[in-house]
Parts: sequence; C-alpha cells; structure tokens
Amino acid sequence: MPEFFHVVEPSVVFSLLASFGRTGIEHVGLEEALDRVLAQEVRAEEDLPYGPRATMDGYAVRAADTFGSTENSPTLLALAGRVEMGKLPGFALSSGQACEIPTGGFLPDGADAVVMIEYADRLSERAIEVRRPVTAGENVLGKGGDVVAGKVVLGPGRRLRPHDLGLLAGLGVCQVAVHQRPKVFLVSTGDEIVPANQKPAPGQVRDINRYSISALVTRAGAEVTGFRLVQDIADKLGRALEEGLGSSDAVVLSGGSSVGERDTLVEAVGRFAGAELLAHGIAISPGKPTLLARIAGKPVFGLPGHPVSAMIVAQVFLVPFLRFLQGEALLPGPEGTKREAILATSVPSVSGRQEFVRVRLEEQNGTLYARPVFGRSSMLSSMVDADGLIVVPTHTEGLARGTKVEVTLF
Amino acid sequence: MPEFFHVVEPSVVFSLLASFGRTGIEHVGLEEALDRVLAQEVRAEEDLPYGPRATMDGYAVRAADTFGSTENSPTLLALAGRVEMGKLPGFALSSGQACEIPTGGFLPDGADAVVMIEYADRLSERAIEVRRPVTAGENVLGKGGDVVAGKVVLGPGRRLRPHDLGLLAGLGVCQVAVHQRPKVFLVSTGDEIVPANQKPAPGQVRDINRYSISALVTRAGAEVTGFRLVQDIADKLGRALEEGLGSSDAVVLSGGSSVGERDTLVEAVGRFAGAELLAHGIAISPGKPTLLARIAGKPVFGLPGHPVSAMIVAQVFLVPFLRFLQGEALLPGPEGTKREAILATSVPSVSGRQEFVRVRLEEQNGTLYARPVFGRSSMLSSMVDADGLIVVPTHTEGLARGTKVEVTLF
Repeated sequence: MPEFFHVVEPSVVFSLLASFGRTGIEHVGLEEALDRVLAQEVRAEEDLPYGPRATMDGYAVRAADTFGSTENSPTLLALAGRVEMGKLPGFALSSGQACEIPTGGFLPDGADAVVMIEYADRLSERAIEVRRPVTAGENVLGKGGDVVAGKVVLGPGRRLRPHDLGLLAGLGVCQVAVHQRPKVFLVSTGDEIVPANQKPAPGQVRDINRYSISALVTRAGAEVTGFRLVQDIADKLGRALEEGLGSSDAVVLSGGSSVGERDTLVEAVGRFAGAELLAHGIAISPGKPTLLARIAGKPVFGLPGHPVSAMIVAQVFLVPFLRFLQGEALLPGPEGTKREAILATSVPSVSGRQEFVRVRLEEQNGTLYARPVFGRSSMLSSMVDADGLIVVPTHTEGLARGTKVEVTLF
Repeated sequence: MPEFFHVVEPSVVFSLLASFGRTGIEHVGLEEALDRVLAQEVRAEEDLPYGPRATMDGYAVRAADTFGSTENSPTLLALAGRVEMGKLPGFALSSGQACEIPTGGFLPDGADAVVMIEYADRLSERAIEVRRPVTAGENVLGKGGDVVAGKVVLGPGRRLRPHDLGLLAGLGVCQVAVHQRPKVFLVSTGDEIVPANQKPAPGQVRDINRYSISALVTRAGAEVTGFRLVQDIADKLGRALEEGLGSSDAVVLSGGSSVGERDTLVEAVGRFAGAELLAHGIAISPGKPTLLARIAGKPVFGLPGHPVSAMIVAQVFLVPFLRFLQGEALLPGPEGTKREAILATSVPSVSGRQEFVRVRLEEQNGTLYARPVFGRSSMLSSMVDADGLIVVPTHTEGLARGTKVEVTLF
C-alpha cells in the first residue's frame, strides 16, 4: 500500500492557504452586519457629536463665571432657561447666566461647561448658586469629541462587534461593505457511512462529520450550501466534487480512514484539468491523512474520515482559512478562545510532527490546570469530555508536567 | 429632582434575575442545534461502536496467537480474507488465522486485536508474518468502548458544540429537546432619538442602542422579535411595553439619560396591574440608572440611555440572563471570554459600587498588559478601541498598577 507522497509541515499548509483569493464584497444593513468582516475602511462623514453635549445632569455655564466659587463664597448665576432633549436651546448664554441641562443635552451657544447638580443650589425659579469652579469643557463632550469627521473608525478585516455597530449607527452609516460568507460544499465519503437517521446495517456506521464539520463551518461565519454522501468510488467522488466546485467557494470532503480510500480521492482530484495536489498528508497528529488541492482556483480539503481527526483538522486549518476568505488575517489554528493553564501530567510526543492533545480544564486552589483527557484518540466521547486542545510543537519530545500551556477552547 | 429609590447591589440583581422562569422546550434537528441549550439529558440508546472496530490499518488476529513474536522469530498466520468497509466479514477467525482490516473496519468474530501494518510482513496471498505480539484489545475500539448504551452523554444546560452534534449523530440522535430562544422586544426611548438612517435635526441624535443591544441579544442566543422607538411619554412607553409583553419573553428598553426620563419609565411600569419594580438603580458604574421590573411574570429591563452604559449593563446583566432563560447556569457578568492580564496603570475607583473599566490588551515581552482606555466614559469610540472590561470590586478604592486582572473580551 502506498504511503503519503507529499507530507508537509503545518506552516507550509498555511502559506498554501494564503494563496487563495478572498470572497467578493457585498453590502449589508447594520441589522445583518454582526460578526461580518469589513471589506473596506469606514470613515466618519461627520463629527460625533456634531455639537457639545452635557455628560452630566446639571447647569450649563460659562466656565469663567465660576472661577473662585467655594462652599463659603458661591457664585450667583441667573437661570436663562432649560435645555429640552431633542431640541436646540432657543437662547444663547450670556455672562452671569446658567441654564438647566440634562445628560445628553446640547449646550446653548455661549456655554462651555456643565456644573454637576451636586455642586449647585437652586435658589429660585430664576437663580442658582455654584459652589465649585468648573474649567472649560468640564462635563461636556465637545463637537467631534468622540469622533472627528474624516477619521477612519474601522478598518478592513475587522469582524464587527456589537459596539462597532453602535458606533456606525451613531455616525449614520447604515450599510457596510463586507466580504461574502464563503459557500462551502460538504461531502462525506465512505462505503460504510449511512445517514445519521438510518440504523446502520452490520459493518456500517452513521455519518458524524456531516454535523460536526458543518457546525464548525457555520461557526467560522461560512455557509454550508450543499451536502452529498457518496461511496469511495472515484467516479462518484468526481461528480460530487464537480457539483461542489460549480456551486461553492470551497469543497470540504471527509472520509478515507484507510490508505486505499485516500487514493480514491487523489484519483478523483487528478481527473480535473489543471488540478494541483498541494498537500498529501500533513505532519500533524491526529490528522496526518489530510489532503489539500486546488481545482480551477478553488480549495478542496480532504479531511480524514475519522470524526475526531476531522474535527481537529477543521479547527486547526479549515476554520482559520474560512475566516481568512472573509477578509480576516490568516492565523494558524487551532482557532478559538485561549486560556492559559498548567499542564497537570506530562505529555509524551513523537518529535517531527505537531500534536494536538485534548485537555480538560480543572481549577484547584485558584490555579487552572490542563489535564489531558484519558482515553483513546478514536473516541468521540473524548472530544465531548474535553474543554479544548493544546499544541505540542513539532520539534519536541513532549511537554513536562507543570509546563505553562495555552489551551484553545472548543 | 428625585434620586434613585431602591439602588441594589449586583449580587441582589442576579438573585432577582434567577427568580424568572426558563423558556419552554422545543425539538430541533441537529442541523439547527448548534449553540442551542439542551433542556433534557441525552442518553445513549445503543453502544458506540456496536461492535469492535480497528483503529489502525493492519491485520485482525487472535492476540494469543501472537504471543512471543519477535523480529527474529515471527509468527506465521494464514490469511483468511479481507474486511471490506461497510460490510461485516463473512467469516470468523480461527486460531492461526489473520485477516486484512482497514482503519474503522469491524473485526470478524474470533479476532480480538489488530497488528499494525508496520509490524507484519506479507509473505503471499495466503500468509503473513507478525513481528511483535499484541494484547487483546490492542488497536481496537471495543463494543461500547466509546459510549455504553444507557449512559447519559450530555446533560441539561449544555450549550451544544460542534463536537456534541457529532456524538449525537453517531448515536443516531437526530432531534434534541432544547430551550426556546428567548424572544426579546426592544424599545428605544428618548425625545431626542431619531432612527439611524435619518439626519438628526439640531438637538437630536441617532438611535445607537437599537443596533448594539440587538447585536448583544442575538449573540446571547436570543431573538429580537420587535422594536419600537418612542418618545419619553408615559402613555407611549406603556403602549410599547404592552406590545412587547404580549409578544415576547422579555422587554428591554433603553433610554433616560436624565433623572426625569427614568421617572417616566417608572410611571409607565407602575400602571400595569401587579407590576413590581425590582431594582431602581444598581450600585455600579457606569450603568447606575438601570431599572428592573416584573410585569405579568415577565422581565422588563430599563437600560440607561447612554450607549456606552447601555452596552456595559447589557453585557453584565442582560446577556447572562438571556443565557439563563435558555437553561444555562446564571453566571454573573460581564459575559464573555476571559483573559488574564497585568494592569498597566492604576485605576482609582469609588468604594461602594462595582466599576467596569474598558481596557486595551497589549503584549510586551511575552506579558499581556491591560491598559485602561484613555478617554471619557461617554465616548462610543472608547468601546470600539477597547478589547474588553475589567471589574473593580465594590469594596475597594481601586486597583494598583501591576495587579493581575481578568479581562472579559468584547
């Protein structure tokens, strides 16, 4: 049986992945923009705020009028009126005057500071006493004080967060140019695979990857646009590939736990004119039997058939790649939230390949420990019991107990 | 002007929130189950795998036959055939026999171990030599070795991850009972607020909270089912509340940066029979002017009108609450991924209230620092520039530079 012809290092895989083009641009409203990735910078077209606003409830004043005010010698100011929300004051403030202003109210002309309500006493309908001086600009957010017109507020490659949408709304930017969600066509292959809702006949197993990989693709902000379950026959694989390439931005197959099956995929890929087999094996564990090809400019991933390996390879390579296609930087995986922890037991490893070890997080006396999940790599339940992955670098023979490790959460 | 009547500690708010009932149960297919929260435990109805499977390419054998095998004195075994994927072998293995088996293949009766292909030599079509002994169960995932029938594989309250969906598919569980997504009705209030797509007249500002709060609600796994923008008039607020309560599980209003406006909301709430005002102010900063009420058993949040405060209060209280309604544990916020960092500058604080400080993360010589974002709390841009929040506990006067802090990422 032939072994892998072209096993490559993870770093090489990432350089290969970086050679693919990003998805096109579309314009979406803010309601649909959460977690989408900006394709173009957004520049403020106006000042925010467009005029000075109070940041406290109190009295708008001319700061100079309050200089020297103390508890014992307060300054008397005449009340010129009241600022109503939603309207510009119909008057300007002269020296010796103040006006009531709520938080968020726009200052009348002439005013340049706000005295907090705590530091003023209302003497009558017409007058207040100020017990502390304020400096110009105090308790005021000036014109353009938040964002100045012309400033780039968000750059391309930014995945939009709730706060970003708030700022965009404040600036009146109601549509943004974002990268399209990559369309992903999924194929499960294997003579033994049956749909999850069927009772497997003896020798058969249910299709697991369809659900786990599809969920990872969705989480990465991409869209699963089609699915096929096919036997390990080059003709059938070829037809599924053709359908996927015709309708999607990427085709992700999983299958081939054995050497023979992987050859069938290589054969199917090879029948496409100009197909390039970029990687035929990756120097990682688990997940070595992973293929990467380019057909008509589009990426084809061949994930291992083994569900645990397939999920790990998807988290390490596919998810960062799908985020890259949407305009984000290509960051080597595993993709996910990181937590630092102390390794609870030593992890032996074979030098010459990058290993991914499932760990469970345990807190003891305020210290977070990462405990490798006991059990064989082939167990699905080990993925469910684990909290995340640690990476054992390629050129080590393992990690000693007590090592500080970075855990990528599932 | 009246101040807050019933300012409560954050811990009290969480106990109040815990008194609300969870959403009902619905059944969804695995395709829609990602990130949904299980309402009932899932028990395996069958063994996974239902028979012993090879975890390596090689030869299925009776382990006892291989005892004593060495490089110099290999064991000769007769080849009884080959296991094909997707079929049960049509033969049983007798002593002295082996059969070819691919990874994932089901072992024939009589076999109890797999010799890896590396440790066997193919002599002919009919015979192999084994150069190393294997023990019973070696390179085999036994019947029920992953999951034993009857085992609870996932418990209620679990937010389903991609891996979980894979395991469920493997067990043939294609539908799960999950909590319904909470339906949230949003109301923006304020006489000065105009829709984001309108040019504000002098004195007016655009509606920001509609987008930022809506995005936070969506991220929390809830659904925004309706929206109203209303003036600060008790009658209008009351009608919006009525509409929201009639159609949703929770009503979230934002508005009222000034004391007077908050009173209007209290008045509107008070007109509903049996309405309870649970909190009228929370001992936090920013976000003190937050209201919490119960009307007809349903929660009503009154977030501050100030966009920065509204987002922070939503992240601290609303998001954990919406996750709780879906069946997850109620964990005090701010909700989000945590990172440990060293405080880069001291943060003064007023004792007696919990403070939330926006920070930016900076890595220097391998150490992660949290630097408080310079700029006033009223700036939207400060939220966009920050990476997350730190919490300054209630009974301190601040945090000293160099303190280890937990940053909750946005």
